Amino acid sequence: MSMNSFGHLFRVTTWGESHGPALGATVDGCPPNVAIEPEMLQLWLDKRRPGQNKNTTQRNEPDAVKILSGVFDGKSTGTPIQLMIENTDQRSRDYGEIAQTFRPGHADITYHQKYGNRDYRGGGRSSARETAARVAAGGVARAAIKALVPDLEIKGYMTRMGEMEIDRSQFDWDAIDQNDFWIPQGADQAQAWEDYLQKLRKDHDSVGAIVEVVARNVPAGIGAPIYGKLDTDLAAAMMSINAVKGVEIGEGMAAALLRGTENADEIYMGENGPEYSSNHAGGILGGISTGQDVVVRFAVKPTSSILTPRQSIRKDGTAIEVITKGRHDPCVGIRAVPVAEAMMACVILDHLLLHRGQIGENQGTIG
Amino acid sequence: MSMNSFGHLFRVTTWGESHGPALGATVDGCPPNVAIEPEMLQLWLDKRRPGQNKNTTQRNEPDAVKILSGVFDGKSTGTPIQLMIENTDQRSRDYGEIAQTFRPGHADITYHQKYGNRDYRGGGRSSARETAARVAAGGVARAAIKALVPDLEIKGYMTRMGEMEIDRSQFDWDAIDQNDFWIPQGADQAQAWEDYLQKLRKDHDSVGAIVEVVARNVPAGIGAPIYGKLDTDLAAAMMSINAVKGVEIGEGMAAALLRGTENADEIYMGENGPEYSSNHAGGILGGISTGQDVVVRFAVKPTSSILTPRQSIRKDGTAIEVITKGRHDPCVGIRAVPVAEAMMACVILDHLLLHRGQIGENQGTIG
Amino acid sequence: MSMNSFGHLFRVTTWGESHGPALGATVDGCPPNVAIEPEMLQLWLDKRRPGQNKNTTQRNEPDAVKILSGVFDGKSTGTPIQLMIENTDQRSRDYGEIAQTFRPGHADITYHQKYGNRDYRGGGRSSARETAARVAAGGVARAAIKALVPDLEIKGYMTRMGEMEIDRSQFDWDAIDQNDFWIPQGADQAQAWEDYLQKLRKDHDSVGAIVEVVARNVPAGIGAPIYGKLDTDLAAAMMSINAVKGVEIGEGMAAALLRGTENADEIYMGENGPEYSSNHAGGILGGISTGQDVVVRFAVKPTSSILTPRQSIRKDGTAIEVITKGRHDPCVGIRAVPVAEAMMACVILDHLLLHRGQIGENQGTIG
Amino acid sequence: MSMNSFGHLFRVTTWGESHGPALGATVDGCPPNVAIEPEMLQLWLDKRRPGQNKNTTQRNEPDAVKILSGVFDGKSTGTPIQLMIENTDQRSRDYGEIAQTFRPGHADITYHQKYGNRDYRGGGRSSARETAARVAAGGVARAAIKALVPDLEIKGYMTRMGEMEIDRSQFDWDAIDQNDFWIPQGADQAQAWEDYLQKLRKDHDSVGAIVEVVARNVPAGIGAPIYGKLDTDLAAAMMSINAVKGVEIGEGMAAALLRGTENADEIYMGENGPEYSSNHAGGILGGISTGQDVVVRFAVKPTSSILTPRQSIRKDGTAIEVITKGRHDPCVGIRAVPVAEAMMACVILDHLLLHRGQIGENQGTIG
Repeated sequence: MSMNSFGHLFRVTTWGESHGPALGATVDGCPPNVAIEPEMLQLWLDKRRPGQNKNTTQRNEPDAVKILSGVFDGKSTGTPIQLMIENTDQRSRDYGEIAQTFRPGHADITYHQKYGNRDYRGGGRSSARETAARVAAGGVARAAIKALVPDLEIKGYMTRMGEMEIDRSQFDWDAIDQNDFWIPQGADQAQAWEDYLQKLRKDHDSVGAIVEVVARNVPAGIGAPIYGKLDTDLAAAMMSINAVKGVEIGEGMAAALLRGTENADEIYMGENGPEYSSNHAGGILGGISTGQDVVVRFAVKPTSSILTPRQSIRKDGTAIEVITKGRHDPCVGIRAVPVAEAMMACVILDHLLLHRGQIGENQGTIG
Repeated sequence: MSMNSFGHLFRVTTWGESHGPALGATVDGCPPNVAIEPEMLQLWLDKRRPGQNKNTTQRNEPDAVKILSGVFDGKSTGTPIQLMIENTDQRSRDYGEIAQTFRPGHADITYHQKYGNRDYRGGGRSSARETAARVAAGGVARAAIKALVPDLEIKGYMTRMGEMEIDRSQFDWDAIDQNDFWIPQGADQAQAWEDYLQKLRKDHDSVGAIVEVVARNVPAGIGAPIYGKLDTDLAAAMMSINAVKGVEIGEGMAAALLRGTENADEIYMGENGPEYSSNHAGGILGGISTGQDVVVRFAVKPTSSILTPRQSIRKDGTAIEVITKGRHDPCVGIRAVPVAEAMMACVILDHLLLHRGQIGENQGTIG
Repeated sequence: MSMNSFGHLFRVTTWGESHGPALGATVDGCPPNVAIEPEMLQLWLDKRRPGQNKNTTQRNEPDAVKILSGVFDGKSTGTPIQLMIENTDQRSRDYGEIAQTFRPGHADITYHQKYGNRDYRGGGRSSARETAARVAAGGVARAAIKALVPDLEIKGYMTRMGEMEIDRSQFDWDAIDQNDFWIPQGADQAQAWEDYLQKLRKDHDSVGAIVEVVARNVPAGIGAPIYGKLDTDLAAAMMSINAVKGVEIGEGMAAALLRGTENADEIYMGENGPEYSSNHAGGILGGISTGQDVVVRFAVKPTSSILTPRQSIRKDGTAIEVITKGRHDPCVGIRAVPVAEAMMACVILDHLLLHRGQIGENQGTIG
Repeated sequence: MSMNSFGHLFRVTTWGESHGPALGATVDGCPPNVAIEPEMLQLWLDKRRPGQNKNTTQRNEPDAVKILSGVFDGKSTGTPIQLMIENTDQRSRDYGEIAQTFRPGHADITYHQKYGNRDYRGGGRSSARETAARVAAGGVARAAIKALVPDLEIKGYMTRMGEMEIDRSQFDWDAIDQNDFWIPQGADQAQAWEDYLQKLRKDHDSVGAIVEVVARNVPAGIGAPIYGKLDTDLAAAMMSINAVKGVEIGEGMAAALLRGTENADEIYMGENGPEYSSNHAGGILGGISTGQDVVVRFAVKPTSSILTPRQSIRKDGTAIEVITKGRHDPCVGIRAVPVAEAMMACVILDHLLLHRGQIGENQGTIG
């Protein structure tokens, strides 16, 4: 029982602090004979990496991932895959005041209260830098998914950033990779989002966001009720990401406003199996995938590190006004997109394997 | 690794189907020497029990819980506590059509697709009746919490049911137990909610809801980053409840609209330790409790079982119009309240024990 | 993480005390669509049941197992299977002295030291009666194995009981079920063993034993290195049985005396795959099955409950001479046979499922 | 559920292959504020390291351990501790034949049968080199034990190597660290063992061994029945070590020959609590420590890599005579000593933490 691990059969353990020598992920349970090259993982790390555009933090690290074990001759061996990312850009500085101060909205105070000893450099273990390890592990998961269900596709995008919101009538799946905000909208919208963010930055402020992740072509039947439900595991996966305060499946919180007659996803028999009139359920019924798109959505709070002073205390209880200088995203939602995709990939691979182990290939047929 | 279990050190495994001979929970990890009597568990089961008022289903079962092991001379022994609830009100009926039909919005179709063989009587394992076992286990958790942190208090209440919403300026903690909806409002409001629900029932419709659960006097420092965070485990616990589609901690999804300057919970030194200017965080920072109220909120979808016909298919793929007769709540949110309280109790006890095992009593002091 | 559970994907949790209302096993992870009838489980419970012959304890209980969940229309549904055995023969008696006394060689003293509160009736949770639950769960495992690998066979037998030892040159597989000691020998030998045991009983003494369990036709390739090795899991399974003090795989402790030239199991190519010149390895290399017989052996200590007085202390520290009256086997090895078979069945099924989940059907071929 | 992890609250995951870039251990659950320096871990690695004396393999690696995370300012932080050992002595060679051949007695054939893809260089993941990671993790466990129970002491030694056996009447605890075989005997005996081993080496042969590990001053009350018993976990820990074929607790397999009157450890009240007339139980009753020495013993088979040709097959099924050249210990028991000590340390720390989490400090008192 490791509290730094997630997953049932595909089990990822992350380790490392923001400013230690390295961080990484120990990935156990990847099936053997999956083609894995470092470049396949680097691709996703580069997507997450800060300093890629002016809207994310300016920490400039290559985030180069090394595979230390578990892959031989370009293929997984079924043994643990150790992924290591060395921390190369550790600006030397005086940590005197930070070591004594609890930044509001950060885990400084609770880590201190829990552990008594913490690595205060850059947030230590509680830094969002830990998510780089998840993205690397997610790359392994994607490679294994590709081998098992080739047409399964996972994509995340922002739907909201403070006052900015996407127009779902203009939803453009292909535009997602074309802009710095991973929004499914055209260049004009992306520019509007950028202007909004620059204004926030000048105001020494930050803002929250909503991210949506969709998995297409997930086979019906995966997910393990009652306490390993697909939606349960996705909720835990997303809530474990730094700054996340809410998670929704399908209709989400809005389901509270609906009537049963409105919310019903009616079922019809299609050529290749059951089809549904709508997807309020987000592709999951009773914790098991229906074969529809699996839709997860989550909100991140505004970055707590801002240049506007906020009141706090030091370790000795004395008051202090905190301004957090440094390399900080005004909206952490942007970088949460590749992280959430990685978590989705890990959860789905895990359930594909778990289903195979628990059920085999036998499933109930329809029609 | 049981997919029907949750918890780390306080581990609950539920078993049983809606219309089988019995259902229950195997509760492992309750510390020894905790005073436990069946009546202490029955209290919560009675709160959850259908047929208690006209707004919940009319299935009339005593839901009497039996303790089969793990308690000796009125005290826990530290060995597994088996809680059994016999199913006594199993109306005999013809299941012919139900056995072949997939009710829309229910797990009938996915259980069939996953397992091939399912107990179709009353939803079988996917029935909300499974939550009775959780409530019994939650009673054990409450007893153990009481022994460890006597002033820790857990309470749930509805905040929304379709168009009805509580008025937070009139929030009345003591009123919660005084009405059938567990709303923190006076009798007038409760009457308005009841009128609304009766109207829905007459319309052969149902509606969703939002439930909020609060834990007061949770000690600072519990929760196990990165993948056993307190909020992560609470999100999983709530999402595992039938019909839940979204989970929020503190500010929840609304955090997406806030600016960093608004969202900051500023810290001051109080007489008994740190105090906060607000609780946008919902009592959790970095996955660890701050000592503030822990606030969880979740949405349930409208009951899928309605008397208005909906389109579906049979196992053989043929079309069928489904009307779900029987004993069904128009709003499952009502009965979700005691279930959510039970889950919160289990999660918090689990983290109290886990903290003790991993950290001991040593924590960082402030001031 | 339940300390009363074992197994990875096929997960068994036992519960209950010797003299409580009932005991049983919560079995999670049985694949769906396995034919299971109570009689299939009862068969093995009857084999274990005391009072069956004059060499085992005279407690006369039917040990009737009830299936409370997880089986529908005679087939498993993939949901938890609850197996309950009610305790019917609870002779009423005065437990005054027993409640205060620690019987030597029993867990009375350590349960007290650990938990402070224990069910002292008949040993409570530490009683060998707990193994009835394992045997019931083992019946489920056997049914599932039969569905997956029809010709896989598991059989246990005694090889030693104090001075009595089997003659391997006269090994008779079919004789095992023909005598009260489960020895692979003829009736003459069985009579000699019985005479020996009766002599011990008259001497108010008991004796230890060695039990061997063999699994035939286990497919090559199951077992999960490094910490879920097949031999590791078998060692844990056997060591968890009451009174077991040693576990061996294949050559066992005697391997210490062998030279590498003697111990080598040489490999040849047979018609249906690799064959071996010998089986010093006990069918396992590197924690993975070779396809040869899997051979496990373990020793049980002599029954601690004897009529010859032994020195001990009471809870208050005062000295007492203990004579344990009651229904006790002079050799617990006899009843350990069906228990060990059950554990072997559970471990092997677990690894069959785990292999399927982690590896799929793809294995390296030879030749 | 990682198959490359062991432990409940103190959870160690090892990773890496014999000839990959590095191997190591991800150690989760070490309590915070434990003093840990690399030198404290290196000490034990040096004890295990091959090439230290002429009786172990000549692979000359510094086995320098690096701490990549989880330790800050010389103290553990409660977050995962990543221990990495780089492989520096990777002699370049032609692996052509080895890649195709299954060495008898090795896991080559079963890894191939299970995974299809394996790192054949030096045994890959199945190499005993993996145990270096365990020794490093054991160093962390020892440091944490020292902080929790300062006088707890763990020591291993050989008791048998083929025909050589220690004389228990001459048992000398202090001599263990004075000779290359970790035997509790004087220099004369050590010389005799060395002569014996050199003879074996000249004969192109190898031999098995028995190792005993003792933990002194283990507090009474640790161990978690029924399936997390202290002896169960120790049996699994030892059986997971390469080449181990048998594990014993206390009297071990010899218990089969004893009578109840002989085997009884009688209990007396001493000044500081219960005392026992003997320790047949090996310090464990019902899976819980008694406070006596915890005694574990295990046998390793003779090294399979010998210079005497043995018959085997290639991947294509063709026959081949195998002579294993290279750097191999004629008796792997020698190097198993520090590995077993490390495993014992990990298991005991784990149960100290688990007991604290599940039970707290409350235990039943005696007297």
